[in-house]
Amino acid sequence: MNAPATAETLRRPVPSSCLDALRAQFADRLSVSHAVREHHGRDESPYPPMLPDAVVFAETTEEVAAVARLCNEHRVPLIPYGAGSSLEGHLLAIQGGISLDLSRMNQLLAVNAEDLTATVQAGVTRKQLNEQIRDTGLFFPIDPGADASLGGMAATRASGTNAVRYGTMRENVVSLTVVTADGRVIRTSSRARKSSAGYDLTRLFVGSEGTLGIITEVTVRLYPQPEAVSAAVCNFPVLDEAVMSVIEIIQMGVPVARVEFMDTAAVRAVNLHSKLNLRESPMLVFEFHGSPAGVQEQAALVQSITADHGGMDFEWAERPEDRNRLWTARHNAYFAGLQLRPGCRASTTDVCVPISRLADCVRETVDELEQASFPYTIVGHVGDGNFHVLMLLDPDSEAEWQESETINHNLVRRAIAADGTCTGEHGIGLHKMQFMADEHGPDALALMRSIKHALDPHNILNPGKVISW
Amino acid sequence: MNAPATAETLRRPVPSSCLDALRAQFADRLSVSHAVREHHGRDESPYPPMLPDAVVFAETTEEVAAVARLCNEHRVPLIPYGAGSSLEGHLLAIQGGISLDLSRMNQLLAVNAEDLTATVQAGVTRKQLNEQIRDTGLFFPIDPGADASLGGMAATRASGTNAVRYGTMRENVVSLTVVTADGRVIRTSSRARKSSAGYDLTRLFVGSEGTLGIITEVTVRLYPQPEAVSAAVCNFPVLDEAVMSVIEIIQMGVPVARVEFMDTAAVRAVNLHSKLNLRESPMLVFEFHGSPAGVQEQAALVQSITADHGGMDFEWAERPEDRNRLWTARHNAYFAGLQLRPGCRASTTDVCVPISRLADCVRETVDELEQASFPYTIVGHVGDGNFHVLMLLDPDSEAEWQESETINHNLVRRAIAADGTCTGEHGIGLHKMQFMADEHGPDALALMRSIKHALDPHNILNPGKVISW
Repeated sequence: MNAPATAETLRRPVPSSCLDALRAQFADRLSVSHAVREHHGRDESPYPPMLPDAVVFAETTEEVAAVARLCNEHRVPLIPYGAGSSLEGHLLAIQGGISLDLSRMNQLLAVNAEDLTATVQAGVTRKQLNEQIRDTGLFFPIDPGADASLGGMAATRASGTNAVRYGTMRENVVSLTVVTADGRVIRTSSRARKSSAGYDLTRLFVGSEGTLGIITEVTVRLYPQPEAVSAAVCNFPVLDEAVMSVIEIIQMGVPVARVEFMDTAAVRAVNLHSKLNLRESPMLVFEFHGSPAGVQEQAALVQSITADHGGMDFEWAERPEDRNRLWTARHNAYFAGLQLRPGCRASTTDVCVPISRLADCVRETVDELEQASFPYTIVGHVGDGNFHVLMLLDPDSEAEWQESETINHNLVRRAIAADGTCTGEHGIGLHKMQFMADEHGPDALALMRSIKHALDPHNILNPGKVISW
Repeated sequence: MNAPATAETLRRPVPSSCLDALRAQFADRLSVSHAVREHHGRDESPYPPMLPDAVVFAETTEEVAAVARLCNEHRVPLIPYGAGSSLEGHLLAIQGGISLDLSRMNQLLAVNAEDLTATVQAGVTRKQLNEQIRDTGLFFPIDPGADASLGGMAATRASGTNAVRYGTMRENVVSLTVVTADGRVIRTSSRARKSSAGYDLTRLFVGSEGTLGIITEVTVRLYPQPEAVSAAVCNFPVLDEAVMSVIEIIQMGVPVARVEFMDTAAVRAVNLHSKLNLRESPMLVFEFHGSPAGVQEQAALVQSITADHGGMDFEWAERPEDRNRLWTARHNAYFAGLQLRPGCRASTTDVCVPISRLADCVRETVDELEQASFPYTIVGHVGDGNFHVLMLLDPDSEAEWQESETINHNLVRRAIAADGTCTGEHGIGLHKMQFMADEHGPDALALMRSIKHALDPHNILNPGKVISW
């Protein structure tokens, strides 16, 4: 499970003059302790930590700009750090340098309820935001499993269970404040709902994983809390029919708020982890948002579709606390899965395909997984054509790691052949760089590289991630 | 109404060797006739034509790539041309060069009905697409007034009356095929509904107005034709209350498909032009999409809001032909407006502001327009915070032109002060370049310029538009 050793992973020294200058400005908000560096040199990926030389805890955009100017001048790698929940090695300091912790930038700066927007510092997490705006009658829907920071979610173009209805960070970031490699501060857009005023800098930084600039403030779209919400689970005798149901629901244009797939092993894992009694067979978890009549109408339509595919009767989670328990369990599926094999480390796949190809893609993947020598679970944001295989690996077994990598490669190849992507929401980081040329082709990749060179000429911003220099 | 004369408008010679090579490849699909060049050297902007040196009619992506390679080698400006319907001088050959007409690239390449996507060549128009996919039960919602080409709509990040529900080209372009300045062909994305695989090239080219690459194919999202559709008009005694109604509707989260504003003069214009009998007072035009019950529910909610603001009873356009007549009239508001002052030429504003600031912005603008020496109409996609003033100018009066420019500048200043944009959907072209620094600030503008330099190092792609070199 070692990160690849290439030219991208040569450490670059941090000159003592740079460290001295940082210490002069940040005092005890600069740390070189091993524990702090180790905490910032890892994420939820299968890779072992690779430590930065120092960690700076920034509190303002101006401080971030000062750090960027110093690092740019000294050619020192600079890795923005939010909640540490990324999955593909995004945060590993493969060239050393400074980890810039933004978690203290956790202020809610503005709620423009009339405009359905909120502006937060990058370190605010999605749960914190929703707690702080609860009284406005609005909510922010994007929910990756972890309680990630909004800055990190923007940087990885995150999504989650609500994306089928509300879109991803691509659709829900209105504007960003970004510090450039040379320490200038820009705002990428106004708060207008739409604009044709020049290049879409917002979308350029969304998904750039800290390689083009450092996101310090995020303005996001909010939505009125739906008048009525209902949630239900529906079990199926076989996985295939669950997937086919979702395809039909999407094609009918039913505006489901959530439709999540869990295979039998995933259901078993969340039962164990969250003390639930869900029936252990392939399952869809639905949530409907709308007016009371609209929610009933959606649910009736969906029930008729699932019944056609052998789905059992809906089991409703009517009360808010039942719904919360259900979705918390779903969000904990990752950690629940880990407990199926004590001491394991997980590698998670993340392909996303056009929905017409989803059933084939899942079926072929399961056929291959059934031969694997380690346990796995499957969960999926299947309404988007996105699903995850959680492969539960013995951390000491190089053979299992290699086997999981082969399965992941085959899955990615399958997804790209189906006109899909190697990553629906987790990002490239280190782990998926090898697939970028396959997915985009050499010329599009060269174009991305020319953008990186233009915006970060000294390659200080999260170097060696997303695309090679 | 002359285009600004600056360094950006110095013509660059087209070497005869370049013209000879183009003629050898394109034969009679290369034209240097004055009539053809004049047709391609203008758009719907208030500017007089500025002619390209030649026009090439391309039929394939490979031909576009060949033209780009030649122009790049010879440093010759290259301006992609779709339907000629842009409004801000996008198509004027201010430095001469080649106009690349893509209207013969009008093939529907694929309809992936199950995935709700279609792929077209860039010259396919929105009406053509909708006619060709009608039998699938799907439709493409984005509708700028003109029957624009999909390539042009992507290039200007167009929207229109449906954007309040379905989004703009930003949200509805899935993927593009783009020819780069040096003649390489890239595809910007797979057809997956979401992806975190690297930089968002799709969104970078959407809205780049031909300055970063030439769009030759467009994959767009389609939507199921709604089960039920209803449309209605609602008149108000005063403009203000109409706008306030819309703000409330949006803030309530009512999923209206369309909500369009027309002032009294605009209603009068479409009555004259389209032989309708609409009541001549400030008016909102609504369309509701959904299930029969959902449409009724939306309409009832909206009616109660408009009634609170003094809105009169809804007048329903129940039959499809009545709805079509209404929306055709709305789409023709631009041409209808022109007829209010025979022989005039129009200058159209296009600001978009956060909806909380819309009422003030409209009110202050009307106060100023009431002092103007020329007639005007106002229409607006007010659900997005976007409205247009059509200023009807004597084409021979420099004084009126200057007066209209002052009003537009003041309006843009007002919009930017309200955290809005100088252009919601028409684009920058030539006419709004002067506002880019005000809206984005010098550092963001410099960043856009660095992207332009990286992707088009010889400044051949629609030079002198969007941002100065």
